Amino acid sequence: MAKEVQTIGVLTSGGDAPGMNAAIRAVVRQALAKGKKVKGIKKGYAGLLAEEIIDMDATSVSDTISRGGTILQTARCLEFKEAEVQAKGAEICRKHGIDGIVVIGGDGSFQGAQKLARLGINTIGVPGTIDLDIACTDYTIGFDTAVNTAMEAIDKVRDTSTSHERCSVIEVMGRGAGYIALWCGIANGSEEILLPEKYDHDEEAIIKRIIEGRKKGKEHYIIINAEGIGHSQELAEKIEKATGVETRATILGHMQRGGSPTCKDRVYASTMGAYAVDLLCEGKSNRVVAYKNGEFVDYDIEEALAMQKTIPEYLYSISKDLV
Amino acid sequence: MAKEVQTIGVLTSGGDAPGMNAAIRAVVRQALAKGKKVKGIKKGYAGLLAEEIIDMDATSVSDTISRGGTILQTARCLEFKEAEVQAKGAEICRKHGIDGIVVIGGDGSFQGAQKLARLGINTIGVPGTIDLDIACTDYTIGFDTAVNTAMEAIDKVRDTSTSHERCSVIEVMGRGAGYIALWCGIANGSEEILLPEKYDHDEEAIIKRIIEGRKKGKEHYIIINAEGIGHSQELAEKIEKATGVETRATILGHMQRGGSPTCKDRVYASTMGAYAVDLLCEGKSNRVVAYKNGEFVDYDIEEALAMQKTIPEYLYSISKDLV
Amino acid sequence: MAKEVQTIGVLTSGGDAPGMNAAIRAVVRQALAKGKKVKGIKKGYAGLLAEEIIDMDATSVSDTISRGGTILQTARCLEFKEAEVQAKGAEICRKHGIDGIVVIGGDGSFQGAQKLARLGINTIGVPGTIDLDIACTDYTIGFDTAVNTAMEAIDKVRDTSTSHERCSVIEVMGRGAGYIALWCGIANGSEEILLPEKYDHDEEAIIKRIIEGRKKGKEHYIIINAEGIGHSQELAEKIEKATGVETRATILGHMQRGGSPTCKDRVYASTMGAYAVDLLCEGKSNRVVAYKNGEFVDYDIEEALAMQKTIPEYLYSISKDLV
Amino acid sequence: MAKEVQTIGVLTSGGDAPGMNAAIRAVVRQALAKGKKVKGIKKGYAGLLAEEIIDMDATSVSDTISRGGTILQTARCLEFKEAEVQAKGAEICRKHGIDGIVVIGGDGSFQGAQKLARLGINTIGVPGTIDLDIACTDYTIGFDTAVNTAMEAIDKVRDTSTSHERCSVIEVMGRGAGYIALWCGIANGSEEILLPEKYDHDEEAIIKRIIEGRKKGKEHYIIINAEGIGHSQELAEKIEKATGVETRATILGHMQRGGSPTCKDRVYASTMGAYAVDLLCEGKSNRVVAYKNGEFVDYDIEEALAMQKTIPEYLYSISKDLV
Repeated sequence: MAKEVQTIGVLTSGGDAPGMNAAIRAVVRQALAKGKKVKGIKKGYAGLLAEEIIDMDATSVSDTISRGGTILQTARCLEFKEAEVQAKGAEICRKHGIDGIVVIGGDGSFQGAQKLARLGINTIGVPGTIDLDIACTDYTIGFDTAVNTAMEAIDKVRDTSTSHERCSVIEVMGRGAGYIALWCGIANGSEEILLPEKYDHDEEAIIKRIIEGRKKGKEHYIIINAEGIGHSQELAEKIEKATGVETRATILGHMQRGGSPTCKDRVYASTMGAYAVDLLCEGKSNRVVAYKNGEFVDYDIEEALAMQKTIPEYLYSISKDLV
Repeated sequence: MAKEVQTIGVLTSGGDAPGMNAAIRAVVRQALAKGKKVKGIKKGYAGLLAEEIIDMDATSVSDTISRGGTILQTARCLEFKEAEVQAKGAEICRKHGIDGIVVIGGDGSFQGAQKLARLGINTIGVPGTIDLDIACTDYTIGFDTAVNTAMEAIDKVRDTSTSHERCSVIEVMGRGAGYIALWCGIANGSEEILLPEKYDHDEEAIIKRIIEGRKKGKEHYIIINAEGIGHSQELAEKIEKATGVETRATILGHMQRGGSPTCKDRVYASTMGAYAVDLLCEGKSNRVVAYKNGEFVDYDIEEALAMQKTIPEYLYSISKDLV
Repeated sequence: MAKEVQTIGVLTSGGDAPGMNAAIRAVVRQALAKGKKVKGIKKGYAGLLAEEIIDMDATSVSDTISRGGTILQTARCLEFKEAEVQAKGAEICRKHGIDGIVVIGGDGSFQGAQKLARLGINTIGVPGTIDLDIACTDYTIGFDTAVNTAMEAIDKVRDTSTSHERCSVIEVMGRGAGYIALWCGIANGSEEILLPEKYDHDEEAIIKRIIEGRKKGKEHYIIINAEGIGHSQELAEKIEKATGVETRATILGHMQRGGSPTCKDRVYASTMGAYAVDLLCEGKSNRVVAYKNGEFVDYDIEEALAMQKTIPEYLYSISKDLV
Repeated sequence: MAKEVQTIGVLTSGGDAPGMNAAIRAVVRQALAKGKKVKGIKKGYAGLLAEEIIDMDATSVSDTISRGGTILQTARCLEFKEAEVQAKGAEICRKHGIDGIVVIGGDGSFQGAQKLARLGINTIGVPGTIDLDIACTDYTIGFDTAVNTAMEAIDKVRDTSTSHERCSVIEVMGRGAGYIALWCGIANGSEEILLPEKYDHDEEAIIKRIIEGRKKGKEHYIIINAEGIGHSQELAEKIEKATGVETRATILGHMQRGGSPTCKDRVYASTMGAYAVDLLCEGKSNRVVAYKNGEFVDYDIEEALAMQKTIPEYLYSISKDLV
């Protein structure tokens, strides 16, 4: 039966993502607006276990909506996969009077959330990852900022590639998922996009197209490579050797995780944070907030974790036509 | 019966919006990929009537995806409401061998498109406006860039407002529609958001809240005002007089229309441009491309123009809770 | 005889400027590195009189170097021109153990600093104003950020001006000084630059050049107007009426004061803050830190206030040749 | 005896740098304003030898001042060190009627310029390199943009470093010169700055400071490493192993070369371009334009190449005090 929560804890877990602060702020402010207390749990599940728990009021989140990173900090916590450790986590929640938790993170973080929910702590997941690789939702906190950061960096690399008539291999984040690569590939007008989901390892074909492009007078050749494929330096060397075209690799790296969030990330993260609190106030638990088919909705965590997601085929197909 | 087009014209009409170049580029490149010819029509319907029509090839749109504005330029053309003038427009299309047109613009531009379609020129509309005020679609080209531009400017005004403990009235674009104001209001953590759709003219209540905020130690007070309400200077003066709090008005103005498009605007505008060409290649006419419920779709122009759109209530409600 | 200070106060006064936080941070950290205590005085001389004085340690300024505005806030304080009020200010310094002060601000603020110095409080001025209108120095804190903010906004206005073939009148900050207008005028490739120092009120000549430019096929016409000349809206209307060219005015306003400081503003403001502390540690008083002829130097306040500064003639002359 | 030039050639050579287009534009427009003809030489000395020479007029440089890279493209040309090749270059100049050349590049490019001058082509060098490593001048085209690009990227890395309590080793450009590293080190408030000019290879001391910092509660540890020192990945691994603090390396790479130039780079590059033309019009040759002690000046190329430059000691010393 639905039990309304009194004290809401909030934590960020896994990799940080721009917009997490907007979500935290929304959890805090919406909870206060609904007459709840709020506690911030620092450093994800690790901080929960270490009882790094702080009281939060409206001013705790003043001037944070525009900040990158997460003011609660984050950490990975492998031991939270063990049943005993999960039980300890739930116990610590009860000790601190936390009867509801908002967990901002990715699929791994939701698995922990599910365990807490089963142990009697009402728990809501909010999707936060720059990789967009959470199947139940069309939006994840941080992706929009990350693709803009990557795109702007690639625009700059393109300037110098054109000036020197170079080929550039640019590696963007995304271990298992090529969303950042696909979006940047289209947005930067790149000649090749290498996605983990589609990669056929046919480097000879790429080399052939570079040689043809150069014959037609192409002044640069931009290859966007996803982290999940990697080996950007080796690919650059192989291309330079085979084509004679000067080729440079750039690995954009962790800068893609930071920076002031975009408008979309601020607005959607705020909405999801508020929505998570609303669910807790309705006595809900074991749910994930999602943005699906143009609406903010929520799913059962099991259901959400079982969903599948694939690279949008139409976008992938036009990425080849528009070069 | 479906007739496949051979030569596709493309024009931008109404107010310019960042991302229009990505859409033009996609029309050109997708059309070429499908074996069509492409003609660029400069300065909207006015340029059509003046026969400012140029041949376009793949290089005509090189290095344009990252540029603000529209390389085809744009203009308003009131006389295109007259039947005779529309007939002349269709005739000029035929004279130049244009049997399909992609019109990138807002509702007014789609009315012209509808007339050309009736006159036998296959016509597809693509929604381009920073105001997001096209009912059939959740996305319009330029909105994402414009809200980010406005948001970043407001972040800066906020810095100086806080330093001086000022109240700031900041006017953003949106004559009939408050989408930019609502999004910036949330994204900038502003204290008040004045939308044409919701405005109750209760300035006394605003003044009361400012006085209360100051008592509680608030270091700034940001009011986002939509162009459709206007009178920002007068409002600022009224507030300063009534509250004693130094108050300044800023009208962000036309800078919101320009700038290099965001990743979303580049990707979605590219997709819509390609999609419009695909429709023409299927023999379709009198359609508008839209993004609705998480998908790229198309509607009959009449149907699209008859739709209604309202400010999302949940976003509006949380905008008050999160302050 | 030189007396070494023990407790250094720091305040920001007059209009805020990006980089002031870098200067405050440098004062705090350099003073601590030299074994001094530091007190922050909030809201300029007004805060001194109200005894809004806080202890500062190294963490007080953590993560502030990248922030716009001033964490100490600022205010104008007309009454500090009175001898009695100045005496009270010096007394309050002594009461709080402050025997040295760093005053970050403009010429008006330095006059106050001079008075405190005469009253026995060792005082050093640091030039902070976005207007660059402090005669003794080639650099003032905030100018570099402000011109970049204005330039980027004008780049955006230019996009839409070109798309619509408009004339744009853009008003930038600078009441008595045209430095921002001159720099933006050159950096944005504008057709006209109206500076308070040079303005001849010959609007007919401008109108004539616009008409000629249009005849030659110019797609936009950008006029940068300094705040000190003002009347941008009236000028736009006059031009539109006389030329038939659609003309819009934009007043960039207070956004020019905010934003994360540029690299130069962070580095130079840090250097000036540290340099001011070094002067106090050498027992100096009544000095202004300056950047002159490629070096950081210091001047007697009287001497500094008596200097004259003019718009660089070579830059002004090329601004006309390069259009 | 001074001979006034009639046709001015302009080329960019060596690594590209943001602002080179502003310089090219200024050369073209100033030359036209003085009644000269202008020819653009593509791809540096290599393009000269290949006779890739184009006529330029005022519109050739329209809308280029805000663009990164160089519209004339650039290349390194080792064979231009040979006397025969230099003679051929001078001959090609004469063949195309070019009696004056502006060479925008670094020290290597000026050596070529010197040879052309001796062979009777009036030649002026303009300092263009993001590395600031040209001894005769306090300003080089592109440095200001590059340090801002690097700084903004490092701000983003810092967000995620703080969120994860990581140590970050960030490698910025600068093979022989640590100016970018020093400026970013100060501007980003980094804990360590490793400069080629100062590097003592005492990694144990760095490791010790990281351990101490962590004990004091430091949430991040940023190390700026210059390209000339390199080995960022190895250093990161060594630190992580020795301290137990998660450590990541980021190599910013070629993005530092691109992007729209800052206001300073646009204004100073424009001024230097115009100044170079003025020198040619006065019949000067074998000179380098410089910005020294707050003024635009010019030096004999031999004299310029013989000068020495060192890292500013005061900046380096405060970089340690302000952490």
